[in-house]
Amino acid sequence: MGKDKVEIFDTTLRDGEQVPGCKLDTEQKLIIAKRLDELGVDVIEAGFPISSPGDFKSVNEIAKLVKNATVCGLTRAVKKDIEVAAEAIKDAKRPRIHTGIGTSESHIKYKFNSTQDKIIERAVDAVAYAKTFVEDVEFYAEDAGRTDNEFLARICEAVIKAGATVLNIPDTTGYCLPEEYGAKMKYLKENVTGIDKAILSCHCHNDLGLATANSIAGVINGARQIECTINGIGERAGNTSLEEVVMIMRQHPHLNLDTNINSQLLWDTSTMVSQKMGMPVQPNKAIVGSNAFAHSSGIHQDGVIKRRETYEIIDPKDVGVSESSIVLTARSGRAALAYRAKKVGYELTKLQLDTVYENFLKYADVKKEILDEDIHEIVETSNVGMKSLA
Amino acid sequence: MGKDKVEIFDTTLRDGEQVPGCKLDTEQKLIIAKRLDELGVDVIEAGFPISSPGDFKSVNEIAKLVKNATVCGLTRAVKKDIEVAAEAIKDAKRPRIHTGIGTSESHIKYKFNSTQDKIIERAVDAVAYAKTFVEDVEFYAEDAGRTDNEFLARICEAVIKAGATVLNIPDTTGYCLPEEYGAKMKYLKENVTGIDKAILSCHCHNDLGLATANSIAGVINGARQIECTINGIGERAGNTSLEEVVMIMRQHPHLNLDTNINSQLLWDTSTMVSQKMGMPVQPNKAIVGSNAFAHSSGIHQDGVIKRRETYEIIDPKDVGVSESSIVLTARSGRAALAYRAKKVGYELTKLQLDTVYENFLKYADVKKEILDEDIHEIVETSNVGMKSLA
Repeated sequence: MGKDKVEIFDTTLRDGEQVPGCKLDTEQKLIIAKRLDELGVDVIEAGFPISSPGDFKSVNEIAKLVKNATVCGLTRAVKKDIEVAAEAIKDAKRPRIHTGIGTSESHIKYKFNSTQDKIIERAVDAVAYAKTFVEDVEFYAEDAGRTDNEFLARICEAVIKAGATVLNIPDTTGYCLPEEYGAKMKYLKENVTGIDKAILSCHCHNDLGLATANSIAGVINGARQIECTINGIGERAGNTSLEEVVMIMRQHPHLNLDTNINSQLLWDTSTMVSQKMGMPVQPNKAIVGSNAFAHSSGIHQDGVIKRRETYEIIDPKDVGVSESSIVLTARSGRAALAYRAKKVGYELTKLQLDTVYENFLKYADVKKEILDEDIHEIVETSNVGMKSLA
Repeated sequence: MGKDKVEIFDTTLRDGEQVPGCKLDTEQKLIIAKRLDELGVDVIEAGFPISSPGDFKSVNEIAKLVKNATVCGLTRAVKKDIEVAAEAIKDAKRPRIHTGIGTSESHIKYKFNSTQDKIIERAVDAVAYAKTFVEDVEFYAEDAGRTDNEFLARICEAVIKAGATVLNIPDTTGYCLPEEYGAKMKYLKENVTGIDKAILSCHCHNDLGLATANSIAGVINGARQIECTINGIGERAGNTSLEEVVMIMRQHPHLNLDTNINSQLLWDTSTMVSQKMGMPVQPNKAIVGSNAFAHSSGIHQDGVIKRRETYEIIDPKDVGVSESSIVLTARSGRAALAYRAKKVGYELTKLQLDTVYENFLKYADVKKEILDEDIHEIVETSNVGMKSLA
C-alpha cells in the first residue's frame, strides 16, 4: 500500500518574508517561487496582497509564473482583503485564498473586543465570500494553539459548511507541547462533522523550539498538510523548517507518510533563500547547517571512517551535500589524522602515526582547525622520515 | 507541593567545543565556566581530558574555579582515559567522571567488533574503575537511541550495580521521534532493577530538529537530567538547547518540573558563547535569536500593541531582553506606524495617518526596514502639516 501524502504548504514568501531584514523584491521572489515549484511543494503562499502595492504585484507575478503548485494569497476576514487577494491570484493555474480570524479567548477579547458567536459569523462570511472567487479556500483559526478545543471544533464545522477546503490550526505563539498539539488534531478529526471534506493543516511557530515536533505530532494525528518555510524563517523564532519535517517522514518509513519533495534540492534551496534574504543559517542548523554533516570528535570520526551509518542517519547526498567532512581539531583522534594524512599523500605506519599524532596535538591545541597545508608541516616536522607521495 | 527538579548538565565546553570552528583556549573556557556556574547549571562537562594536553589543562583549571556546579570529565571505557580524567578533576568541589561505550548493534558490530556480553563487561569494569576515584560516576550508553530496549535495560542494571549514579541515554545520531524516546525512558524506569538508585539523563542530538522535543519527552517519562548546550551548539546539527528546555518547563507549569536556572542570564550567556566561539546564532533561533521578540507583520503588531500576550508567550525580560521590538516593514500596518511615529514625536490624527501610511508603503516597498530617521522623512513629505514634537 502506498504512503499517505502530506501536502507541503510553503510560506517562505509570506510568513518568512514578513520578518525584519527578510524583505525581497519581486524579481527575487520570482526566482524563489520557481525554485519552490521545482522542489515539489504543493502550495506556495506568495504573500499578503492587501498589505502593499509591491506585495500585490509580487503575488500577481508569481501566480502567472508557477507551473505546478497551488498559489495562495493571505487575507484577514475582511471583504476588501479577499477581493484584492482574488485579483492578485486570478491568473494562477491553481488559486487558493487563505482567510481567517483569531479564535482564542485572548484574541477575541483583546484584539477584536468581540464574542465567540460573532467570530463564527465573521469566519463563515469570509469563507463564503472567498468561495465566490475561487474553489479552494483555506481557513485559519488564528491562535488555535491556545483556543479551547470545543469552540475550535464549532468554528471548523461552520466554515466547512461554508465551503472551506483546508483548515489551518496555527499554534501562532509557539506555545503547545507536541502531545497537546497532536491531541488537538485528534479531537478535531473525531468531533467535527464533515471533517472528511477538508484537510487539516499544521502551522507551528518555534518560540519554544518545538515547531517541528508539533507539526509531526499533527500529521501523526490526522493532519495532512504542513505549513513551513525554508530554513525555518518566519515571525519571531520562525516557523516549522520544511527540510526537517520532510526528512523526518523520509527517515521514519513506519509513519507511512511522505511528501512530493525532491530532497536533493534542499541544500541548494536553503543556500538560495539564505543569500537572497541576507538571513544566515547557523552552522548547527539541522539538515542544512554547514556543520550538519561534519565530524570532529575523535570518537565520532573513528566510527564514521569505519562505517558512515555509525554516526549519520541521513546520507548527505540525499539532501544535496556531496560528502560528510572529517574536520581535524584537538578533539580528533589517530584514525582521523591517518585518514586525512593519507588523503594528502602520507601512508603512516602505526609507529609513525604515534609520533605525528603527538606533534599534531601541539598544533591543534593552539589552532581552531588543522587544514591540509598544516598536515604537511606537522608530518615534516615530526621527523619520521616521511615525504608526501601526492 | 514543590516541583520535581530536573538537573541541567551543560556540555557547551565538551560536546559544543569539539565542533569545527568552536575551539576555545583555557582562558575563554574559564570565563564561560564561571558564567555557567552563575547561570545555575547543576553540572559542567568541562572537556575530554585524555584528548589533548590543552584540554586536560582546561578541565583542571575549571575544576579549581567552579564554586557550585559539579565538574565532569568525559572518558571512553578505557583505563587510561579514566585515570587522566580523575587527575584533571581532582580539585573539583563536586567531581564526576562520565564514562561509557556504544551499545547499539551498529556500534557493537562495526565500531568494536564485539558482542553484547563483552560490552556489558567493559561497561561494568569502566564504572567500577571510575568509582575508585570518585563517588559520582555517570555512564553513557552511546547510540542508546538505536539500541534495543531490552539490552539497554540489561546494561543499565549492570552499571547501577557497579555504582553508576547517573545513566545517560543518548540519542547520539538524533534519530528518535519524541514518542519513541519518551517510551525508552519509561521502559527503563519500569524494567531496570535498582533504577531508583540512579538518575536517568537525556542527551539528544538535533539532526532532525527534534532534540528539544525528545528531551522534554524524556523528562515527562521519568528522566531527571538534561544534557544540553548554550545555543544548541554541538557535533553536527548540535545538541539540545539549554535555553529552550528551561523555558518550556517554566512556561508549562502543569508539567510540575523545574530547574535551577536563572533565566534572566540566558540572553547574555548566549551572546557570550556565540562571540567567544565565533559561532553565529541565527536571527530566528528560539529564545535567543535577535528576532525572537521582534514583530513585523501588521496583524501581529496591532495585537502586541493592544496587549503583549496576544502574540508573545514569554515576557522578554524573563530571558534578559529589555523589550519586544516593533519593526516597520512593508508588512506593517497603521497601528505600528502610529505607535512608532508617536515614539519619535508625531501624534497623527486618523486622517493624517491614512495619508502618511500610503506614503510609508511607497518607502517600505523598496526598503528592508524603516528606521526612525526614515519616519521623519516620510511624515514630512506626506504634506499633512506635521512637525516632530520630539
